[in-house]
This record gives sequence, C-alpha cells and structure tokens, in this order.
Amino acid sequence: MSRVWNFSAGPAALPPAVLERAQRELLDWNGSGASVMEQSHRGKRFIAMAAQAEADLRALMEVPADYAVLFLQGGATQHFAQIPMNLAGPDDSADYIVSGHWSAKAASEAGAYVRVNVAASSAADDYLKLPPRDSWRLDPRAAYVHYTPNETIHGVEFHDVPDVGDAVPLVADLSSNILSGPLDVSRFGLIYAGAQKNIGPSGLVVMIIRRDLLQRAGRPMARIFRYAEHAAADSMLNTPNTWGWYLAGLTFQWLLEQGGVAAMADLNRAKAGLLYGAIDGSDGYYRNPVDPAARSRMNVRFDLHDTALDAAFLQESEAAGLLALKGHKALGGMRASLYNAVPLAAVEALVEFMGDFARRHG
Amino acid sequence: MSRVWNFSAGPAALPPAVLERAQRELLDWNGSGASVMEQSHRGKRFIAMAAQAEADLRALMEVPADYAVLFLQGGATQHFAQIPMNLAGPDDSADYIVSGHWSAKAASEAGAYVRVNVAASSAADDYLKLPPRDSWRLDPRAAYVHYTPNETIHGVEFHDVPDVGDAVPLVADLSSNILSGPLDVSRFGLIYAGAQKNIGPSGLVVMIIRRDLLQRAGRPMARIFRYAEHAAADSMLNTPNTWGWYLAGLTFQWLLEQGGVAAMADLNRAKAGLLYGAIDGSDGYYRNPVDPAARSRMNVRFDLHDTALDAAFLQESEAAGLLALKGHKALGGMRASLYNAVPLAAVEALVEFMGDFARRHG
Repeated sequence: MSRVWNFSAGPAALPPAVLERAQRELLDWNGSGASVMEQSHRGKRFIAMAAQAEADLRALMEVPADYAVLFLQGGATQHFAQIPMNLAGPDDSADYIVSGHWSAKAASEAGAYVRVNVAASSAADDYLKLPPRDSWRLDPRAAYVHYTPNETIHGVEFHDVPDVGDAVPLVADLSSNILSGPLDVSRFGLIYAGAQKNIGPSGLVVMIIRRDLLQRAGRPMARIFRYAEHAAADSMLNTPNTWGWYLAGLTFQWLLEQGGVAAMADLNRAKAGLLYGAIDGSDGYYRNPVDPAARSRMNVRFDLHDTALDAAFLQESEAAGLLALKGHKALGGMRASLYNAVPLAAVEALVEFMGDFARRHG
Repeated sequence: MSRVWNFSAGPAALPPAVLERAQRELLDWNGSGASVMEQSHRGKRFIAMAAQAEADLRALMEVPADYAVLFLQGGATQHFAQIPMNLAGPDDSADYIVSGHWSAKAASEAGAYVRVNVAASSAADDYLKLPPRDSWRLDPRAAYVHYTPNETIHGVEFHDVPDVGDAVPLVADLSSNILSGPLDVSRFGLIYAGAQKNIGPSGLVVMIIRRDLLQRAGRPMARIFRYAEHAAADSMLNTPNTWGWYLAGLTFQWLLEQGGVAAMADLNRAKAGLLYGAIDGSDGYYRNPVDPAARSRMNVRFDLHDTALDAAFLQESEAAGLLALKGHKALGGMRASLYNAVPLAAVEALVEFMGDFARRHG
C-alpha cells in the first residue's frame, strides 16, 4: 500500500527523505561497493560518517565542549541500571522525580545499584499533572537527580528544565522529546535517549554526559558498562550498532536542513496545538484528562466519550491510513505520537478524521 | 561503484538477496505502509515476523525444545560480563579456555562477576594451535566452562565440540561461526553470538540457553540484565533492535533456501580449502602460520613473505574489488573472512588475484 500517517509511540515514524536515502544506498554506500551494514566500524569511511553524525548532533543541540557524546546500545531501560552503576558509589543515594510510567520504571531499575529516594511523585494524581517543583524533597548529598521530561504513556511533559541548583547533577531520560525543541544542555549532567522516537531505529542510545562525571568511580563493574571507557574509545569499545548510528546521522542532517530544533519547536507546537484544540473543541466527544500546563507535545492521549466506540475508531482510522492510534494497554483509549518526523499534514488528516468520525457516530 | 567482494571480519558481508529484499520493502514493509523500523515491536505484524525468525533459527540449528532463544543487544562483549552475572553466584568460579584474543577478553571481562579459572591457554604458543583437551584443568565445581569455538583475529577454530562431561554446562561464544555448519546444540548450556558476522547487522546478539540455567539466581542485578526476564518477555522486555531482528530473519530464510547449515558446511569447507591451498601452494610467497588442524574456516590469516609488499597488496586488491583484506592491527599481515554470505566466486577471485600479484611482484 502507499505510505500511511504513522502515530506510533515507538519505534516511530522516520522522515521519508531519510528512508529514501537509506533505500537508495542500501547495497552501495558512499562509493564503497557494499552496504553501510557490511563496513568495519574501524574503517575510514565508517569512522568519518560516525564523527559527522556526532558533529551534527553537537551543532543541533549546541552541546558544550565539556560534554562527551556517546552512541550506545541497550535501550533507555539498560541505562536506568547503568547510570547509577556509573554515577553512584555503593553507599550513595539518588533522587528520582516520578511523573509517570517511565520515571517510575527508571527509579525501580536503579534500585539494584543505588539507594533510591523518590523526591517527588504525582502517582496520587494518576500522573495527570507534574509534581510541583516546590514539593520536591531533594537531598543535597544525592549522587544525582533523575527525571523524565516527557512521559510517553501518561502524556505529560515538563515545558521547562527544573532548577535543582548546581551542586547535584541533573539526569534526564530524553528518549521521547530529544531534538523536539531547543534545550540548554549546560543545565544537565547527563542526558540519554533511546533513538526509536526522535532519532532513528531502535537498538541505539544517544548519551550526552558532562566529562567530569566520567571521573566518578561508581561501583565495581566490567569495562563494557563504564561510560568513561566508551568515551575514551569514541563509542567503539566494541562493535556499535552501525546501522542505527548511520540512520541517526541521516536524521541529524535532515533536521539541520529543516532549520534545526527551533524549526522543530514551531512545528511541534503547531501540531500539538491543532490536535489538543480539536479534542477540547469536540464538546466532550473526545477528552484529554491531562492538566493543560503539563500536556505533552509529543504524545497526545485522548479518550472517546464512550469506550464502546473504541474498536470502530481504531478500525476506521487504520482504514483511513492513520496508523497506531491505540493507547497504551495500561490506560486504554487512544494516543497519537507526534514526534519530529510526523508532519503537520498527518495531524490535519487525523483531526479531519476525528471530526468526521464524530459526525458519523454522533 | 558496483558491488565488491567483501572479506570484512565484521560487520561483514550480507547475502545480496537479503539486502535487495530489505531495500525493496524499506519504505513499505509487509503491506503496512511504513518501514519495518517504524513499527511498534508490540504490533501484530512485528510479533509475527519475530516469531517466524525464531522458528527458522530453531529449524536451522535443530534447537531442542528445552532451550530458549533470545534476541538481545550489547554485543558479545556485554555478554562476557552478563553471562557470569546470570550463571554464577557471588562465591562461584568459572573455567575459561583461552585460545586467542576473544576468549582472553571474555575471561578478562568476566572477572568483575566471577572468579575466573583459566583452565587452559595456548598463549604460550602465540595462539597458533588450540590448547589440547588433555591439558585442560577443569574444576568439577565450576559454574560453567567458557570457550570460543572460532577466534577471528588469530584464525584458529575448534572443529569438534570438546567433551567436558555433563555436570558443568558448556558456554560458547559462537559470534564468528554460528550457522557455518551443523552443531549439536544439546552439547551446550548456552550459546551466544553477535550478529554481525554470520547473521545480520551489528547491535543484535542471538542467545540459545538451556531453560534450567534460567533458574540460576546469579548475583543481584537489575531486571534488564537477567536472561530469565528476557525469556519470559519473549525478548521484548524493552524495545529490541527491530531492524536487526528483521535482517536476521531474512538471513535465516535465505539459509533455509540455500539448503541450511549442511550446505553451508560444504560451501565453507570448499572456500577455506581453496584459499589455504593457494597459500600453501605458493612456495612461501604467502604463509599461514596456524597449526593445520586448528585452522579457521571463517578467518584465514596470511602473511606475504616480505612485509614491504603489504601496502601494494592492499592497494591493488582494493582496486581489484577485493575489500577489507587488511589483517588485525595486533598481528599485521592479511586476513580474509569467509562467512556464509561470502560466495565461492569471491574466494576464486581472491586466489586469482594472489597468484597474479605474486607473478607481478615476484
């Protein structure tokens, strides 16, 4: 069939221009006579591509020179565990802000390697709002403060970087909103992101880490888990996910061509505004329960006024070329993920379908 | 340029038929209107593909029912560390057979999580032969015995599965020779393999583990490191490397179409025989120093009689469309990797070039 509008929460839509280029050069990359997947990561061609991808990411995010950029594996979930291993000693504690499914999981997985202090949580509010900054009970001796700027399942997002002072490094799982708009990297000690939402295919993690944190002893571990070793080896301590790195590089180039993160911020604001507007303007036919101040630009939850209509909505939307609108099983309902590669036209098509559906099933 | 003959040690050549199919369906996979990289791993289409890939691997390797098959991340190197975490308790030891660079590294990385007993080593022989089985000082209380059936850098290979009895499980890093010929999986407790040589792109690890070993407590660790959790979640404990899994599945289908591992064994024997024959028949112009009984079918080392000719050999071979013949920097010289996807015609072209080079530079 022809290409659909893809609202998958992840692995998510990729820019068609990126896919078309990858398709063109799949058997003969960069004049090598072989696929990028068939290249040694130690070869000149691959190393040049890898360095360019890093340089492009640094340009896009204005990454300061005292931060290392790493291309890793394991998904964000592995780094839920690996971050405390690296940043916390055996007797340390770390502060976790719990604002939804993924930050709760980050806190839970960290428990094997650090004493977890849940410094704030919005669980009692069903994660429909963010824990107010003045409720956070931060420990000045914490090894770090961890939070999740965007929660893909609960559809809540921090629209500003919380001020936690300078003494304790701020760690953020940016898997679902990295590169969706400008961000002051210097406010963070460590940023990490699974690639499969705003960067590329799954199986790649991008990490930006302030170099002084690479000096922390952490706890005893094998070399392969130590970020300092990965940094010293330019992320080639062992064979990296070469295809993922390549696709990420193509996406970074595409983002630069689009006008960078400032242009993405405008686009993402317009897309989310259009969809939330349609939901709020539907006289209760569609509903989003999230505190408007905390609504995610990336993942828009909505419920139909009658769950008996859910099956018809999903069937008809898919038939209309609108893919993957089913909400996460934990919450039911619908979810439209609007990452960078989802164009405004996709949201326009969705909003039109929603209006049409409401009229037909009113 | 047109496709070359690719002798890369890894990431290595993939079957052209696999690449062509991936290219055709890159933007519209399986009638979905989106790339396989853009699919949720929890969607019906992806789950069906993933299950078929596992079923095809089970058929190819005749994997017994009491073994789980896992699709993981991190490269073999991460599992050098993760295997002892899972199979050994805090006070246990494990036996390691060291027959080259990779088995030495496996033993070294394991040291963070288990007491390593080097039960045998051929380091004193510069890894030019295998440690004879009767020299192995195995500990009957070891948590497991680890060995590396093929060493990509040193070019040595075990041509039979060593008998270590039934009491202690045998663990094998099959990264570089999995699926290169028939193997009795029931002789092993655990087999693991980085995909980037005989299976698919880098960033994927295939593991075959006897289910009783999933019950071992190991040491305390985060859930994401525990193989039993991955097995219980059908390797979707978190988002897997979906592209890698897909490519692996295409490779398994291709192998079945070629006649399976028996056909691969014949082909690999013919390829290695042709190249070693050319080396041994060159009157010392080319030399392979490895004990003939231990020569690898997958990675053929050879040195020119005069290292002053190395640069010309590499330059002229690349110009002739013979890619990645440079030996590993630890040993110098040349290396031709002859994994499943390298056809006999590639080796014929290499042998012809070698003869021609010797005549011209004699």
